[in-house]
Amino acid sequence: MRILVQKFGGTSVADLECMKKVRGKVREALAEGRKLVVVLSARSGRTNALLEMAHQWSDEPDPAEMDVLLATGEQESVALFSMLLQDDGIRARSLLGFQLPVLTDGAFGSARIQSIDAAMLRRELEKYDVLVMAGFQGCTAEGRLTTLGRGGSDTSAVAVAAALGSVECHIFTDVDGVYTTDPRLCEEARKIDRISYDEMLEMSSMGAKVLQIRSVEFAKKYKVPVRVRSTFSSDPGTLVTQEDDMMESVLVSGIAYDKDQARVTLCGIPDKPGISAAIFVPLAEKGVLVDMIVQKASREGITDMTFTVSRKDVKRAEAIVEEVRHAIGGECVETDLNVAKVSVIGVGMRNHSGVAARAFAALHQADININMISTSEIKISCLIDEREVEKAVQTLHREFNLRLSAVEEQQR
Amino acid sequence: MRILVQKFGGTSVADLECMKKVRGKVREALAEGRKLVVVLSARSGRTNALLEMAHQWSDEPDPAEMDVLLATGEQESVALFSMLLQDDGIRARSLLGFQLPVLTDGAFGSARIQSIDAAMLRRELEKYDVLVMAGFQGCTAEGRLTTLGRGGSDTSAVAVAAALGSVECHIFTDVDGVYTTDPRLCEEARKIDRISYDEMLEMSSMGAKVLQIRSVEFAKKYKVPVRVRSTFSSDPGTLVTQEDDMMESVLVSGIAYDKDQARVTLCGIPDKPGISAAIFVPLAEKGVLVDMIVQKASREGITDMTFTVSRKDVKRAEAIVEEVRHAIGGECVETDLNVAKVSVIGVGMRNHSGVAARAFAALHQADININMISTSEIKISCLIDEREVEKAVQTLHREFNLRLSAVEEQQR
Repeated sequence: MRILVQKFGGTSVADLECMKKVRGKVREALAEGRKLVVVLSARSGRTNALLEMAHQWSDEPDPAEMDVLLATGEQESVALFSMLLQDDGIRARSLLGFQLPVLTDGAFGSARIQSIDAAMLRRELEKYDVLVMAGFQGCTAEGRLTTLGRGGSDTSAVAVAAALGSVECHIFTDVDGVYTTDPRLCEEARKIDRISYDEMLEMSSMGAKVLQIRSVEFAKKYKVPVRVRSTFSSDPGTLVTQEDDMMESVLVSGIAYDKDQARVTLCGIPDKPGISAAIFVPLAEKGVLVDMIVQKASREGITDMTFTVSRKDVKRAEAIVEEVRHAIGGECVETDLNVAKVSVIGVGMRNHSGVAARAFAALHQADININMISTSEIKISCLIDEREVEKAVQTLHREFNLRLSAVEEQQR
Repeated sequence: MRILVQKFGGTSVADLECMKKVRGKVREALAEGRKLVVVLSARSGRTNALLEMAHQWSDEPDPAEMDVLLATGEQESVALFSMLLQDDGIRARSLLGFQLPVLTDGAFGSARIQSIDAAMLRRELEKYDVLVMAGFQGCTAEGRLTTLGRGGSDTSAVAVAAALGSVECHIFTDVDGVYTTDPRLCEEARKIDRISYDEMLEMSSMGAKVLQIRSVEFAKKYKVPVRVRSTFSSDPGTLVTQEDDMMESVLVSGIAYDKDQARVTLCGIPDKPGISAAIFVPLAEKGVLVDMIVQKASREGITDMTFTVSRKDVKRAEAIVEEVRHAIGGECVETDLNVAKVSVIGVGMRNHSGVAARAFAALHQADININMISTSEIKISCLIDEREVEKAVQTLHREFNLRLSAVEEQQR
């Protein structure tokens, strides 16, 4: 039995017309002789409407009951879409999270999948050509409904593909793949044909929000080949898969950026052991996620500590650090919201030196000042003035010849 | 553990304000030291909206998928109401049909309850003070969702009460009980304090649509005391319960009527054995429900057969009977839509004669012509001109002194 998993997001199932387009995609795959598991999200806007309703009913809605409420969104989608397939003579049935079951832990609102019963899927695929599965939802061992958090349908789809023996998983969305950078900022942006899981993780955490990050982690762990495609075109999209020689020969795969950055600096503090812990432990305890961290070279035993957080957290971070300053001594706390992060991403960096130097030089030549730098094995990130994001993205995109495909680049 | 089952219909949970009134009823029962199972319907209008959507998606929606869709209505209600209770500090959780489970057969859209796991209910009632249960829904042994048909939440509530050992079941609605007749037709109509299951069955099948008929059958079978009450008043309502001496001493309990009647007559047919089967078997096979049947006294081997059906079925019944006429010979088929049925109901009839005679005499004195008569152990029904329904109801109500309560009647 050749099985394919397809996942369609909220905009793809928004209304009857959209669902008919989705049915077209299903028909295409059936014509190739495959059996299908089609994972759907709630119709676009539905989840937000339910959330709004819950907050009218209760100031702090119980997370367990919230999941019972939210799960109706996907339940609606799968029932309606199954009707539509049957209306066209396709043997289909809906599958809810608890029916499979998609077993999760009990973290209501952001549950994690523990297991999926692939035997049940295979049994139902003997009887039906298409199983229309509710994404985003699961249930605990006690049978209580759970949801996987925003974008959780991607994870549902990848998890099902993994359970079925790492079959191919097509994630349909409203863009036709993953781009070398945001086409709105850089008209030379080019669709990437193949990208590694690690690169995709860096891209999606940076605002190239095509795939939920947990679904990519899942795909990487179980080696599920994921194809990101558009519901509204026939483009083959981008294949997210294991690293291979071809990918490694490419220095840089893409340029990402993130405008949701704010910088916090604790100035003039004594440079002594334990100072980092004194600052970052309380931030972590209060749930503030810190991204980049830089400590200035110490001078006469005095230093500055700078870090970035999400803009929504900047007030809380400032208050926490202000307390720390009183405890350990320090001159002042400064914040800056007019910053953004630009990143160069590529698994090729692992084996090639000089990428960082080329990036810094290119930004310097474009008169873009770098405030902070952080690097990983496959990524170089620079904090810059947010007004220069567009120029920085274009500069780096050109510097690494991303306009050309990997094949063209090699042929140069 | 003292347990009470409460059931609230769609108008009682229509919006936040209504649900707060329902919460008031829950608080009252909790204050009496009881644990509660609260059965809810979908918010009013929701089920119709979902049905409409399904019919946009498919000309003939699959009944199994329709049930998946419709079940979201009650799921929404129970999640929201649980939030509302918790917001008020009440220990509550929602329960969906599949979680209990409410096990049903596989007749999607009109499934019948086969069993309910009372052990699970008792276990959860140890942990929570209120279980908010989705009415109308269940699941098959294979875990597919089912619904019980219109008004099915009443049946859910009575079935749960039966499973818990025939505990009391309060059905909250927008009227404050069962009346001797329709107060809109007869201002002397009086609320009944106690009524037997059998009388209630006759009343509810006649358009006194307070309780779903299947729920009354269920209540009778398992001896569940059912109280019909209003969400919007503190009146104790009407207790539907087993027959007792008090009830039997009352001749007549109520006057019901049904305007959804149409009369079909097959005239001038040969009066020979098998003629009834020739007419009513094809009607039954095509799903036409026949109510009253009268065969005219035969004259020279020729007779007329008259019966009544629901008005929506009259065209189909006419066509079927026309075919029968061609097969067996007959003069013509006549239909009349301007008829209605008036019924006198009371378990007292079992032990008292002369009720029918009194009813016919009273109608005669009021110049009301009787077209057809049918009787059962506890009911006498007359088919009359529909324009005379109001007069007939008032006449019969007065004839049997229904304005007075049972106690007052005895004191006379």
